[in-house]
Amino acid sequence: MRPHLLSLCLLLVPTATLAAPKNIIYMIGDGMGPTYLSAYRYYNDDTSTKAVENTIFDELWRGMASTYPDDDTYVTDSAAGATALATGEKSYNGAISVNRQHIPIGTMMQLAKRQGKANGIVASSQINHATPAAFLAHNKSRRNYNEIADMYVDYRINDLPVADVMLGGGTDYFVREDRNLITELKQLGFQYTDSWQKLDSLTKMPAMALLAETALPAALNTEQPRQLATLTEKALALLTPAKKGFVLMVEGSQIDWCGHDNDIACAMAEMDDFAKAIAVAKAYVDAHPDTLLVITADHETGGMTLGAAGKYLWLPDVVKKVKATGRSIASQLKHADSDKAALELWTQLTSIELTDTEQATLLSTRQQDETELRKLSNQLVAKYSYTGWTTSGHTATDVAVLAYGKWRDEFTGFQDNTDIAKKLIQYIQQTK
Amino acid sequence: MRPHLLSLCLLLVPTATLAAPKNIIYMIGDGMGPTYLSAYRYYNDDTSTKAVENTIFDELWRGMASTYPDDDTYVTDSAAGATALATGEKSYNGAISVNRQHIPIGTMMQLAKRQGKANGIVASSQINHATPAAFLAHNKSRRNYNEIADMYVDYRINDLPVADVMLGGGTDYFVREDRNLITELKQLGFQYTDSWQKLDSLTKMPAMALLAETALPAALNTEQPRQLATLTEKALALLTPAKKGFVLMVEGSQIDWCGHDNDIACAMAEMDDFAKAIAVAKAYVDAHPDTLLVITADHETGGMTLGAAGKYLWLPDVVKKVKATGRSIASQLKHADSDKAALELWTQLTSIELTDTEQATLLSTRQQDETELRKLSNQLVAKYSYTGWTTSGHTATDVAVLAYGKWRDEFTGFQDNTDIAKKLIQYIQQTK
Repeated sequence: MRPHLLSLCLLLVPTATLAAPKNIIYMIGDGMGPTYLSAYRYYNDDTSTKAVENTIFDELWRGMASTYPDDDTYVTDSAAGATALATGEKSYNGAISVNRQHIPIGTMMQLAKRQGKANGIVASSQINHATPAAFLAHNKSRRNYNEIADMYVDYRINDLPVADVMLGGGTDYFVREDRNLITELKQLGFQYTDSWQKLDSLTKMPAMALLAETALPAALNTEQPRQLATLTEKALALLTPAKKGFVLMVEGSQIDWCGHDNDIACAMAEMDDFAKAIAVAKAYVDAHPDTLLVITADHETGGMTLGAAGKYLWLPDVVKKVKATGRSIASQLKHADSDKAALELWTQLTSIELTDTEQATLLSTRQQDETELRKLSNQLVAKYSYTGWTTSGHTATDVAVLAYGKWRDEFTGFQDNTDIAKKLIQYIQQTK
Repeated sequence: MRPHLLSLCLLLVPTATLAAPKNIIYMIGDGMGPTYLSAYRYYNDDTSTKAVENTIFDELWRGMASTYPDDDTYVTDSAAGATALATGEKSYNGAISVNRQHIPIGTMMQLAKRQGKANGIVASSQINHATPAAFLAHNKSRRNYNEIADMYVDYRINDLPVADVMLGGGTDYFVREDRNLITELKQLGFQYTDSWQKLDSLTKMPAMALLAETALPAALNTEQPRQLATLTEKALALLTPAKKGFVLMVEGSQIDWCGHDNDIACAMAEMDDFAKAIAVAKAYVDAHPDTLLVITADHETGGMTLGAAGKYLWLPDVVKKVKATGRSIASQLKHADSDKAALELWTQLTSIELTDTEQATLLSTRQQDETELRKLSNQLVAKYSYTGWTTSGHTATDVAVLAYGKWRDEFTGFQDNTDIAKKLIQYIQQTK
């Protein structure tokens, strides 16, 4: 190529010349620190081959993001994290898209609606939990679940409720003694179901499905396969007819909860559920190249590391054999008929052979409350798999940024979490 | 731009059309997991401003790399990690650029020399430690320090020793009772010094400086500022005249050692020393655009996280006030004249106010060996700064990949550590 033509091309080709995407799928793995991605790769490794296979996360990995809040700490909570990811502005821990003066900050979902786009949220938690809440509502505290649920009905944009598609859990907050928000939404034209079996009855926007009283069951405990993938497929099907495109936020909500419990088996199952939802979104981009997929996390949870006790080991095979979350194991062991039955259950649920001392500790802990039993169960799985954990809370480490579609290079390299939102907001502002 | 011209450009512009870089600077932060980069950012934060300032690592961050060895574990050691980074082939833990059958694997430094390029290594450890060793030598075990040092003299390529520039520590291995390798290297035409003050006496290749018996002093303990940056500047000055360019490997060796000790203050000081060396390399690329800078780590050490004990906190201010490594603190406290003097020293060296119980523990531990005192010191700094650590060994988490120069996009996204080496080897093969 002649030098002058090459120079001309280099000037003209930058991605800034790309028109904004019509559709945006924005996926958030709550608590999904970078080590969760490493762990999931080794957890999925086909050990019959020499190389470790790439995961869907690896294929899409573009950069990293800092997550610090506008607070007197570098460690964010999910509310401040989601506020940054939904608005491009940082706030204090606990804030649902309000600033430190409690003044609402406009979110990309609200902007999308004003621009004539459709929008939707999918979560494996209750849909009024911190992350989805920060995309739709404003509140000085994430704990005001009922106020946040009310806002999903009361906050109107162009005379319409703030979201077109809402799929997840949370009937406890939407069907209350003081107010039945489901009845109100139906009156506003929403299709609604509370049953996985009747998900097909949702045929057009606006639509809502609340499939649990609070959160959906943990991926490791449920018989329902591909929970988040199924809801993501449904949301995409509902949103696709939108003439000016859509913005969909999908949260893998419970990765974080496994992290808080320091429960590696729980975390890997939630990562798997999230990965399957990402596969749905990636296929959607392949079929609809005017769609941008961006995936990140709000923060890391638990201080998870893949090594402990000075050993150069991490043993996913131990993790793979665990058949229930620590919470479920604790509950089952607590309710076992006898110590003998409890020990048999332990072996059946974890395949971990305990020492005599560990067995004795397990049985004495069974006399305490389930919380202690859950902690012990998770500690034992961590010990035998050489998984490290440093906290029951969050940490300040950076998180991964993944992207797919023509605009993916815009998310390459290191960035702040607010930068991700700012780019998406710029795209939404260009809605035609 | 007219569509057909745009299409033409898109076809013609890919980075594959770039000629290979003339020079490669390859920097390895031993043990530098991704959380070390997050930590260093908050450690450097100017708290008088609202935003957290980007570090030089952030500016150059392009991707992530997996680090697993060809062994019965996913957790690599530095030898297998460096073998992968130097040869593009994985091997077992302990291997110095030999495969599982102990057959040597050619390294990029050896290839560079065969291609007529100059090469060099800089390390803050002894220069025959695992990482630099894997670039120059072959041995079934990293522990064979003398054999490895011998190979630096005996292994000839084009009748010349395997490296042109070697700067770091290690006189203990090069001036031995059985063999004086320095004398031999001088006879082969090497300029040599063992003094920081006489570094200027090295004026041309081949050249060697060994500035300590084993490793250089820890960055936190030394009066010598910018240790690694100074050596990087010297190496670049020596290598620049090479007509066909050069390959320089610079290792921030002791980040890993701080990690093994679970010593956050030590780790941040080593990161700072490494960052200053990166600044030198980045400026070199700016002045010599035919140079590619690639930075990564061989693995993560210590399972460092930025949060502990359920608190949403990481407190770099605590870390910044610590004036010596845990090893040095332990030694100083051990040798204090009295318990009172020891406690005063503790306050002077750490600025951490201990509780009465902690003071008592510190004093009773002072009666044990320095190792226990060092562990306690580092645990106290970790506790007060809310730094989490999960192991005295390595972990399997992915590491950052940073790049600068025209070829940087080749290192974007997720890759295996061997992929980095393979790309660099391809470039070296294209030497003209």
